[in-house]
Amino acid sequence: MNILNFKSSNCLFMKKFSISIPILICLFLSVNAQETDWQSIASGVWQLKVGQEQSITLLGAAGAKPDMEALKKLPEADFPLDKAMIRAEVIDGKTYLRFPLQRKEEIYGLGLNFQTHNQRGRILNLHVDHYARPDNGRTHAPVPFYVSTRGYGVLIDAASYLTVYVGTAIRTDADDPPELLDRNTDKDWKAQPYSDAVEILVPADGADVYVFGGPSMLKAVQRYNLFNGGGVLPPKWGLGFTQRVPTLYSDRDILKEVKAFEKHNFPLDFIGVEPGWHSMAYPCTFEWDKNRFPDPKGFIQSLRDRGVRANLWLNPYVSPAGTLYEKVKPYSGSHTVWNGLVPDFTMPEPVELFREHFMQQHIALGVSGYKVDEVDGFDSWIWPDVATFPSGTSAEEMRQVYGLLFQRMSSDWFREINQRTYGLVRASNAGASSLPYVIYNDYYSHHDFITALINSSFIGVLWTPEVRSSDWSEEWLRRMQSVCFSPMAMLNAWADGTKPWSFPEVEEQVREAAMLRMRLLPYIYSTFARYRFEGIPPFRAMQLVEGLSLRSETSEGKLDSSENPYASYATREIKYQYMMGESILVAPMFAGEESREVLLPPGKWYDFYTGELAGEEEVITIVPGLDRIPLFVKDGAIIPMLKEERTRMPEVGEKPALEIRHYGEKPGVFTLYDDDGVSFNYEQEQYSLTELWVRKQGSSVTQGMSVSNEKYFYYSSDPVWVFMTK
Amino acid sequence: MNILNFKSSNCLFMKKFSISIPILICLFLSVNAQETDWQSIASGVWQLKVGQEQSITLLGAAGAKPDMEALKKLPEADFPLDKAMIRAEVIDGKTYLRFPLQRKEEIYGLGLNFQTHNQRGRILNLHVDHYARPDNGRTHAPVPFYVSTRGYGVLIDAASYLTVYVGTAIRTDADDPPELLDRNTDKDWKAQPYSDAVEILVPADGADVYVFGGPSMLKAVQRYNLFNGGGVLPPKWGLGFTQRVPTLYSDRDILKEVKAFEKHNFPLDFIGVEPGWHSMAYPCTFEWDKNRFPDPKGFIQSLRDRGVRANLWLNPYVSPAGTLYEKVKPYSGSHTVWNGLVPDFTMPEPVELFREHFMQQHIALGVSGYKVDEVDGFDSWIWPDVATFPSGTSAEEMRQVYGLLFQRMSSDWFREINQRTYGLVRASNAGASSLPYVIYNDYYSHHDFITALINSSFIGVLWTPEVRSSDWSEEWLRRMQSVCFSPMAMLNAWADGTKPWSFPEVEEQVREAAMLRMRLLPYIYSTFARYRFEGIPPFRAMQLVEGLSLRSETSEGKLDSSENPYASYATREIKYQYMMGESILVAPMFAGEESREVLLPPGKWYDFYTGELAGEEEVITIVPGLDRIPLFVKDGAIIPMLKEERTRMPEVGEKPALEIRHYGEKPGVFTLYDDDGVSFNYEQEQYSLTELWVRKQGSSVTQGMSVSNEKYFYYSSDPVWVFMTK
Repeated sequence: MNILNFKSSNCLFMKKFSISIPILICLFLSVNAQETDWQSIASGVWQLKVGQEQSITLLGAAGAKPDMEALKKLPEADFPLDKAMIRAEVIDGKTYLRFPLQRKEEIYGLGLNFQTHNQRGRILNLHVDHYARPDNGRTHAPVPFYVSTRGYGVLIDAASYLTVYVGTAIRTDADDPPELLDRNTDKDWKAQPYSDAVEILVPADGADVYVFGGPSMLKAVQRYNLFNGGGVLPPKWGLGFTQRVPTLYSDRDILKEVKAFEKHNFPLDFIGVEPGWHSMAYPCTFEWDKNRFPDPKGFIQSLRDRGVRANLWLNPYVSPAGTLYEKVKPYSGSHTVWNGLVPDFTMPEPVELFREHFMQQHIALGVSGYKVDEVDGFDSWIWPDVATFPSGTSAEEMRQVYGLLFQRMSSDWFREINQRTYGLVRASNAGASSLPYVIYNDYYSHHDFITALINSSFIGVLWTPEVRSSDWSEEWLRRMQSVCFSPMAMLNAWADGTKPWSFPEVEEQVREAAMLRMRLLPYIYSTFARYRFEGIPPFRAMQLVEGLSLRSETSEGKLDSSENPYASYATREIKYQYMMGESILVAPMFAGEESREVLLPPGKWYDFYTGELAGEEEVITIVPGLDRIPLFVKDGAIIPMLKEERTRMPEVGEKPALEIRHYGEKPGVFTLYDDDGVSFNYEQEQYSLTELWVRKQGSSVTQGMSVSNEKYFYYSSDPVWVFMTK
Repeated sequence: MNILNFKSSNCLFMKKFSISIPILICLFLSVNAQETDWQSIASGVWQLKVGQEQSITLLGAAGAKPDMEALKKLPEADFPLDKAMIRAEVIDGKTYLRFPLQRKEEIYGLGLNFQTHNQRGRILNLHVDHYARPDNGRTHAPVPFYVSTRGYGVLIDAASYLTVYVGTAIRTDADDPPELLDRNTDKDWKAQPYSDAVEILVPADGADVYVFGGPSMLKAVQRYNLFNGGGVLPPKWGLGFTQRVPTLYSDRDILKEVKAFEKHNFPLDFIGVEPGWHSMAYPCTFEWDKNRFPDPKGFIQSLRDRGVRANLWLNPYVSPAGTLYEKVKPYSGSHTVWNGLVPDFTMPEPVELFREHFMQQHIALGVSGYKVDEVDGFDSWIWPDVATFPSGTSAEEMRQVYGLLFQRMSSDWFREINQRTYGLVRASNAGASSLPYVIYNDYYSHHDFITALINSSFIGVLWTPEVRSSDWSEEWLRRMQSVCFSPMAMLNAWADGTKPWSFPEVEEQVREAAMLRMRLLPYIYSTFARYRFEGIPPFRAMQLVEGLSLRSETSEGKLDSSENPYASYATREIKYQYMMGESILVAPMFAGEESREVLLPPGKWYDFYTGELAGEEEVITIVPGLDRIPLFVKDGAIIPMLKEERTRMPEVGEKPALEIRHYGEKPGVFTLYDDDGVSFNYEQEQYSLTELWVRKQGSSVTQGMSVSNEKYFYYSSDPVWVFMTK
């Protein structure tokens, strides 16, 4: 439904002939959205269509399909805002949106930010780009979705460069205006006075707006993810360790690398083949180089024989030296990237040409996935905003959705052969929750990589704090520990050739972190299953812990740490700790730091390694030593693990033994999810749910395990129970 | 003439119903500009009107009126580009422009950049804003005008956020495409391949485009300035020294400050009164504070009695505590800045309300000018792009022209009383050449301040590298020396209360620099007269020295300093030296640097202070000591100076004595301009031109002076001739 079906050019026309008359004619023409225009389109999800229907949208490009059944399972929600306070109008070809804010409300999300959390008081121009400091909206996933500490979410589904004023714009007719102060004499004068609204400028004559109900922030995020089809469930091998090899490694070099991993007893489930596999790269041919890879099929098979899969690097720009060039040319943009064509993937023809080529040349050979590089920017070498595309899609729209389009297209190839993939991508956007890709970049600040991991949980994307190289062993170990507690445990050695054992003095500790990740498979896989079926982000910000109130006063520009140290702490340190699944709190250490503070949410928390009590709803200071990444477990938590260390994730048919841990005193329940780990058969209910439970009463402990669908339970049925807290 | 008179919405309409068809329909609808559409509208200036006429333009906002007579006096020029290579089309409501580039061509201008010169290879989003590194188009004067080393200029007169791709965008159908290289194996592979065009996206459905002929870069700049009415000719007092006092200084404090200047024998022509003169500031009342300034008229008069003028700080945001508020409210934007109204100065009503108020409350009292603060940004506290204005002007357009509008409006007030003003402004844009304002900001990098000074000469604005405070005396002296060789010699002590003598160990050297500036009045004033009548920037980049070729290879990404050290030098150091007028080369020193390199253009150059030969068309290294700023004078140059040091610029009626210096061996001629120094009577030819000449033959020297219009020659007629080079 278009609520504004007049042409914006009318308004422009008015302007020209009325420049000096103080008129409200333009405003008169710009009808505001009515309260009745909101449509309930899924449980707890409302839609408002503003202005003209746009041919390109983010959710459309992502191919996002709401999981209506899963949404229904969430508690019902009321529309979380006062509809009368929401404004939406189209003026002169642009869409103006406004949502109310209350005092002390905080706003999270709005893109993959690296240095900030709460976006209130900030202005973001959401623009797909290489991230280059500061957080200004230009990033790899500038998702126009935010969640509020008041427990709701808002999505602007528009494939353009949105500007979002998050509590900075102040209207003459503000509902809750700031105090008037004289800077000459008043110490309390503020450069940025209080604002009661989020305002958004969409440089297009329409947009789809969605509101997601709560009542908690997490529930709003869940609804957002489920509305996009639910989170991705990676194949089990995707949760193992992955190494990316130097650019020009040949098939022999790579096999040698795999053997070296075996010799060092280091986990390796898939290996990243960098640009050298192409007969030409930057731009790309997507054809195997005959010298470095004379027998691609044999090469992939030798890897598979050793339990290792291959992921191929690419950028989508088509080299004149390849066979795709002439075929794709009619469906490409006006501008080149490194002399390569930019295929217009909003059109079916190049999508089909790519499908044919990729299915035949890679996927039929056993290639497990891709690393999709250079779809983010940066401006100097990606197509310019003056580029045109044969479909009529603008360069700006194309920039905002290109990463989504490639993710969606390539996911479809694997779905066609009923195999899950798990790859890497440099650009994403709204609607990506179910796309099997993890975002990465070149920025390489360990601290900010962790903040990005946390922020990814607000916006339905996955992020890896990849490791490349380090100047010294402590930094190496700290980075390797972190990446093993992220969506993809990756060492990206394309440039440096670093190995996990490159720093022999910490080789054992690095291996321990990687092995722990392997052993945690049952826990992590179940965690991703909740992402898939319930929309709960597997790695997530403390702000999404339900029942934890972290509201700070930062938006007021004042911070009195003596009055409320908890709030002060929240603004400072909360950027560097996160939850992995329901029960494990990860507090990474950074090189050069011997101690750190950790915020423990309500309830008792236990040391993962020892089971000892760490604290209860407080900020603790820890001095953990070098060997291990600090992990804390919730009281009553059950953590199912593999009993034995291993270097490959289980293949279908294997039945590894379980070790089931319990922490603390409270009774615990854990639902262990399992399936074949590789196919989409789980969509036909070919999965098992196993209930694990523990009850402690005084010195007596009871526990149990009941499997729902044994056929799809790929663990041995006699777990070892370990009660970590004595 | 609108060359594209169909509505862009047609194109949008097409898109919606043809998303998957590989069509050229949109391109078909977007007619390219024809060669015949270019109109010759002044000597050496051509105009192309693209798409819809826009109600707001930069030149329109500036009130720029071409000086047709002055333009005619320049040599005739041919259209400098191949018209067939220029593209202009409107697609989907946006204007796409393209201009050809040749290999090794360099591009200067495109805004007040602080760190870069040659813009080729860069992408700029021209957006009025506080400058905050790097050079990305967001700056105080994002002027969409560029000049090429091939000797022409291009102006896009559009009041919107233009994106300019300066030789970065590469088309599939490039006229001069880059070489195809394989990054896997070719060391010469470049991240940014060669591009043969400047491409510009104007987010509006039309724009006025101008091309300015050469044949030199300087001639193109002159045409640009004359097309905007010629450069500003400041009042003589504006070229003296100015001090800005601390925020809350009262009338008594300020008079005490003036006396302190007298006691220290330090020049002072005007004093800057900071926010405390308002009864409320941020937002402003524009009304005198009764406690700090009980008798404004008496206060201004006491200053004038001591030969000092007053300049008033303001930002244009109207406080609810002032009388203007209710009157201006109907003509103000939807959003506030610090609770102040944002008047819509595109409408006549608020312009008249301001005129009335300002004429009566300030100008009638003798106020000499304004410092217009906070019209640049930054985003967090200026009006947002979602603001609307009663005239229908968009927030984006308003942002791009607000500084221009205030400059133009306030200049008109002074013209009304036939008095020149000379003030400060934080935002400007194209069309500002004749506006009597100097741009300043808070950035405070001494190096980058000099680069900004140089870049200002490409784009028709003036810039002051203001001094505020320093950590140590060397830095203080170096900054004070630089600012005395800039368009406004200003110490801005609003926050720090620093005085010129705050570092007693260098007080004498600081005074010498300021006194030298005073003594150079005849030279500098004549230099500004050439800005006014010929469009030649008074302070300018070495690139604008005619006959000097500085082409470097930076755009190719290679720089071989052993092959061509001159070119290599040009890219490195040329950012830190500049010309003041025709004959003086200024090479400022920076704190902590004992020596520096100076590029001497063709011909012989002499030390200003000693008259000794410094070098000839070469790069010299100097070790000048602390005392003086290095100045070099061209062979044959005549430098007219005041014979005596003084602390005030001459008042009308005074006839100070001249010292006329000659440097080097070559014969010299200098046209000394003079007028009353305060009024616009010079526009009625009430000025004098005095020819000064020197001829040296062996040991015999002849010289002479002939005045054209003695009535307006305000110097004594018996100069002292000094031949600096023995």
